[in-house]
Amino acid sequence: MSVYEDMLKCAKAAQQASRTMATLSSETKNALLLQMAENLESAREGLQKENDRDIQQAKKNAMAAALLDRLTLTTDRIKGMADGLREVAGLPDPVGEVTGMWLRPNGIRVGRQRIPLGVIGIIYESRPNVTADAAGLCLKSGNAVILRGGSEALHSNRAIGKILQQSLQGMALPQGALQVVTTSDRNAVTELLKLEDQIDLIIPRGGEGLIRFVSEHSRIPVIKHYKGVCHTYIDRVADLDMAEQICMNAKVQRPGVCNAMETLLVHREIAAAFLPKIAAAMKKAGVELRGCEQARALCPDMIPATEEDWFAEYLDLILAIRVVDSYEQAREHIQTYGSLHTEVVVTDDYQCSQRFLREINSSVVMVNASSRFSDGNQLGLGAEIGISTTKLHSFGPMGLEDLTTRKFVVLGDGQVRG
Amino acid sequence: MSVYEDMLKCAKAAQQASRTMATLSSETKNALLLQMAENLESAREGLQKENDRDIQQAKKNAMAAALLDRLTLTTDRIKGMADGLREVAGLPDPVGEVTGMWLRPNGIRVGRQRIPLGVIGIIYESRPNVTADAAGLCLKSGNAVILRGGSEALHSNRAIGKILQQSLQGMALPQGALQVVTTSDRNAVTELLKLEDQIDLIIPRGGEGLIRFVSEHSRIPVIKHYKGVCHTYIDRVADLDMAEQICMNAKVQRPGVCNAMETLLVHREIAAAFLPKIAAAMKKAGVELRGCEQARALCPDMIPATEEDWFAEYLDLILAIRVVDSYEQAREHIQTYGSLHTEVVVTDDYQCSQRFLREINSSVVMVNASSRFSDGNQLGLGAEIGISTTKLHSFGPMGLEDLTTRKFVVLGDGQVRG
Repeated sequence: MSVYEDMLKCAKAAQQASRTMATLSSETKNALLLQMAENLESAREGLQKENDRDIQQAKKNAMAAALLDRLTLTTDRIKGMADGLREVAGLPDPVGEVTGMWLRPNGIRVGRQRIPLGVIGIIYESRPNVTADAAGLCLKSGNAVILRGGSEALHSNRAIGKILQQSLQGMALPQGALQVVTTSDRNAVTELLKLEDQIDLIIPRGGEGLIRFVSEHSRIPVIKHYKGVCHTYIDRVADLDMAEQICMNAKVQRPGVCNAMETLLVHREIAAAFLPKIAAAMKKAGVELRGCEQARALCPDMIPATEEDWFAEYLDLILAIRVVDSYEQAREHIQTYGSLHTEVVVTDDYQCSQRFLREINSSVVMVNASSRFSDGNQLGLGAEIGISTTKLHSFGPMGLEDLTTRKFVVLGDGQVRG
Repeated sequence: MSVYEDMLKCAKAAQQASRTMATLSSETKNALLLQMAENLESAREGLQKENDRDIQQAKKNAMAAALLDRLTLTTDRIKGMADGLREVAGLPDPVGEVTGMWLRPNGIRVGRQRIPLGVIGIIYESRPNVTADAAGLCLKSGNAVILRGGSEALHSNRAIGKILQQSLQGMALPQGALQVVTTSDRNAVTELLKLEDQIDLIIPRGGEGLIRFVSEHSRIPVIKHYKGVCHTYIDRVADLDMAEQICMNAKVQRPGVCNAMETLLVHREIAAAFLPKIAAAMKKAGVELRGCEQARALCPDMIPATEEDWFAEYLDLILAIRVVDSYEQAREHIQTYGSLHTEVVVTDDYQCSQRFLREINSSVVMVNASSRFSDGNQLGLGAEIGISTTKLHSFGPMGLEDLTTRKFVVLGDGQVRG
């Protein structure tokens, strides 16, 4: 069989299975996830043996230490996967909810009912725990899932897939509901991305390169998350201690993630009071500062910021700083250079807070809080399957509900159209 | 300027304008739509002159009478466009609504607020009234819109665009909010479809060929509506008079539209009682019948149906008929051959009605009503911008709300992440 035929067979099995999964009760789905958690933990030793094969191969290929660490399935991480499945089992089931039911003049009742998307493809890199995490969310929301991880985690992903499949089998559920694609053929992904009649959504999880590749080759809708160039704007009227705490948290608590602050905008009227203070604190925390001319006039040892800095997602201990003349200039800066991820205003001015919330249409807008809260768990979605910085279907962190859609249901008693 | 530069300039102007449009009050947007309606009616004569240029050209090109009719802007149709804008002005504004606002354990409040998508591109064929209809819906929902109609309606679309632009100008609103692309360069569409950084959504309106073309060339998300292969299933326990009325209405009231019935499925236990009756009524209405073997055993003058008939969207007075052994077989038929548009069950059996509503995941599922109700106006959405038979973002008929998305808003008082 060609890789195209392989992928088509896989996608068709998933589509067939998705029809069964869509009608399962929450009880059955929860039991499945709990069973998967059990099976993962009891198969720990075998799983670690398979994981070790990936690790040995990675060492031969001289993989960087950080990546090697992400690849490793420690006992804690396996417990983490199992606990993650248990948590998702405990979340409310979005499927079946009827949101609105109204009566039309002719007597038909019209409602909207939440249903699973159908078949979801997850394309991801390196961390093998994504296999269990993503599978749990997709199955809980009544979908079938096709998982394609990176080649460096091949044995680990295959082993996790087998364990999860056994749980399906044990409950007499269709095997097509969860499939791990482990062919070494590099065309598997491009072939999968063509199957728009079988697969309803593709979620790529990984670096910008992976996301652009998937997005360009896919005929299937893709949830995109390119960059997080998050801004914090300190308004003219702001509690400067609070501003400092929020900025420090947003920049240094975990600089390598997409919801960390990359650019700080400061109103010129408080720049003299705030900038030297925050610059000292940032420097103490090891942050390299790149400032505009006005910022450098106050803190001369900042590196001059270039146009590229305003667009940059550093994911590192680097911060771009710009002094702005007004709220309007801050807004324009965000609209010009931002990535629609997360923007924060620190202000005590009611008008300014309301304008910021109303006028800045990034996926998450915050008043007086750290951008680090921009994450499905922190915002209260229960779990996060990913984050979308494009506006269709979902915008911002995505939870279980984002893996569903709504159909119309119509109840009549013989109505026909005149 | 190249057509690429032209389109980029247009899209950038739209993006810039969309930021203003997103913050307009409902009052301002309604006043704009009412002004547009006024201007369309008072410019009627000039508009008809421009329309006549398209008609003369179409006659030279020997355009078919039906298409020529759709192209013609009669006084009634111009009034229809104006009234359509007035209706949309009267609809509730979806923008700004906060759906849910919850408190997290750390004290931040998290809500979801409805915002416009941003910039919407409409690519359509022949009927020039789409220019005003689509513009009204996009502007009311706070978006900027780029309209690209067919070359056969070039002068009409350009004239409508000018009139609508004057209304924007009269209210000192940005011209970029509504642009009609009238270049004769055929690459305009393919260039537009590349501008994913400026345009948020593409809605193609027209035949399957147009939709496939747009979908294959677009890097921007596309709302797709390929086919309406709508089924009506007559259950074992059903009011046969009601079934007949529903079937006749679904097939013959307006056979050329996507929510007309294309395939009738009849439970074998009532086939002998129902099929000869409905076959006679259909024949009387001029409908050609194509039946499976079992159907032909009861009504021998039906044409034998082939596999292709089950997939067919006739959009004509032709009906495929199949006798099924059970509800399950009906469901399988719909899942195998359907297009996820609209499916109807006629039944008096509670269990069957509930299973149908639960297990059939087409965009509209109905009990005891005609599939012809599957339309935004009939379902109570107020107006319809299109219909989606893919599941992402919107599924089924789309109204104003479907031209929006939701952002997260977070209200804190200095919270940082631990």
